[in-house]
Amino acid sequence: MTLALEGILRERLGRLVGAQLGACEAAIGQELQSSAVPLVRALAEHVAFAGGKRLRPILVLLGATLGTGGAHRAVRLGCIVELLHTATLIHDDVVDQAPLRRGRPSAHARWGVDASVLVGDHLYSRCMALLVRDGDLGVMDALATAMVSMTEAEVFQLERKRAGELSEADYLRIIRQKTATFMSACCRIGGLAGGLAPEAVEALATYGERIGIAFQIIDDSLDFAADPTRLGKAIGHDLLEGKRTLPLIVTLDRATGEERGRILEALGRPGLLENDVAEVHRLVKVYDGVGYSVGRALVYAETGVAALDRVPESEAREILTLIAEYVIHRDR
Amino acid sequence: MTLALEGILRERLGRLVGAQLGACEAAIGQELQSSAVPLVRALAEHVAFAGGKRLRPILVLLGATLGTGGAHRAVRLGCIVELLHTATLIHDDVVDQAPLRRGRPSAHARWGVDASVLVGDHLYSRCMALLVRDGDLGVMDALATAMVSMTEAEVFQLERKRAGELSEADYLRIIRQKTATFMSACCRIGGLAGGLAPEAVEALATYGERIGIAFQIIDDSLDFAADPTRLGKAIGHDLLEGKRTLPLIVTLDRATGEERGRILEALGRPGLLENDVAEVHRLVKVYDGVGYSVGRALVYAETGVAALDRVPESEAREILTLIAEYVIHRDR
Repeated sequence: MTLALEGILRERLGRLVGAQLGACEAAIGQELQSSAVPLVRALAEHVAFAGGKRLRPILVLLGATLGTGGAHRAVRLGCIVELLHTATLIHDDVVDQAPLRRGRPSAHARWGVDASVLVGDHLYSRCMALLVRDGDLGVMDALATAMVSMTEAEVFQLERKRAGELSEADYLRIIRQKTATFMSACCRIGGLAGGLAPEAVEALATYGERIGIAFQIIDDSLDFAADPTRLGKAIGHDLLEGKRTLPLIVTLDRATGEERGRILEALGRPGLLENDVAEVHRLVKVYDGVGYSVGRALVYAETGVAALDRVPESEAREILTLIAEYVIHRDR
Repeated sequence: MTLALEGILRERLGRLVGAQLGACEAAIGQELQSSAVPLVRALAEHVAFAGGKRLRPILVLLGATLGTGGAHRAVRLGCIVELLHTATLIHDDVVDQAPLRRGRPSAHARWGVDASVLVGDHLYSRCMALLVRDGDLGVMDALATAMVSMTEAEVFQLERKRAGELSEADYLRIIRQKTATFMSACCRIGGLAGGLAPEAVEALATYGERIGIAFQIIDDSLDFAADPTRLGKAIGHDLLEGKRTLPLIVTLDRATGEERGRILEALGRPGLLENDVAEVHRLVKVYDGVGYSVGRALVYAETGVAALDRVPESEAREILTLIAEYVIHRDR
């Protein structure tokens, strides 16, 4: 079922914006190749071409396609958002000390923390320079606002992690600011590039925010439930990092005092043991932490799709609806 | 002599742009206080208010004062360049693993690498958002171009460090791209805010670039020569990091084969010993590495001052000339 949906989505996307997506891939490659410093190219390409879903450029391109033209500009903006996303991935892996990204060594594991911090910074700057060249203050405002929100949420997340506390409200605030705001901005700038009416641009931005929240909840749920060979990272990795996500938060809420104590004790241990991970996973299963989370994600995805009523009926809109479904039902 | 020059400079700066500098300090504080996340405020204030010279905002304010007005905007731009500079300091200390900054624990030593990477990113984003609000594409272009250049140079520097090689040409490329381009951009946006004629803006940008190069050469020379209590960091720290700067590069060029071998062996040792540092310092003294470097810095500063011929004669211009002198003769 999931694979079938993925196939249909890929096929319809290919027919509608395949050429632009290809142009976007080429633009990303050219932008990275243009650097005079080999280490920039090697590190950035390692992360940018690791097989990501290109969800953010796809959102930009579909947003533009809903309007009347701006295809050429949308390709450029798609390239910029993917490079920005690449920069955040590089820095996130430093912050999380993640050894793997999509089944391969993460950038800092291979080239060091120093190189990863600097190449991430360089990509941010390159994106800013590309946006200035594009010259649209509305687009710049959307992306700058999203970046402010994302980076603030990352610091807030770290602060909560250090405090050893994270409520469901904190969690939702973090994923809204961190993942959803950026996807929302991608939809918004696509709509702006396509020359959509303001009401339709707002609707697209709402859609992007809601599927962004759904996307992150599912991402966090996959850490408890996915097939590790398809996911490309170790299951339970979030736990090992001491990261609390929705399935665990709801399990902590629902567990008995004694069970809660056991989970918190396990999470607090410097090196979490295999036994601990297995026990936490067992309790998440008992209290249906993943089921609850997927249910929440589904509601967000549905309100996102509902917002699409206010954008022109079209193949692009149908694909956006399919993307919302895919976000919920994907297994990686 | 140095202290006297510093006093005169401070006094004349205070009379000409003291109020604006005060407004700039207040704007920096307000911008940081406006963050909803305590960790952002604490970490960013620790670095932003550690007693920096505020050279970059001063260049912006003086540039604007050379023209006709734009004082209010110059204060805002001064705040932005200092926040950008703060972000680079936070990330630089992570990259260099520097334990101290201005005699106090560096941000990553106190709050961790993760917090430092994220707060640095957040400050970058905030600056971008502030620039968008300012809305001047020329200003944005100058700063974005400078940031691209700076961050690329940082990666290049790391690459050369790993290769264990650094020629004088490499060194000059790095400090031009890293320090000078940003100071040049500060002068340029000051001139733009002040509404200066294009020729005068270019002259200011040239001045900024040349004193930027001089500034960095002197900074690197102080590591071999300064009084540690005034400098606020351990002498020889660059050496301990394996960083090769101009005084060492010229010493390596001038030394005998046997001496060169000894220096390279010492630099290659994982934990440099106190004896090694003393021996390298002795050879730098023998071959006048600091004298040569200061001589080079002086030439750059003089060409910078010469460029000022093309800006309106004024108190601001005289202060810029004094700054060039101070850059050479400072002891910290």
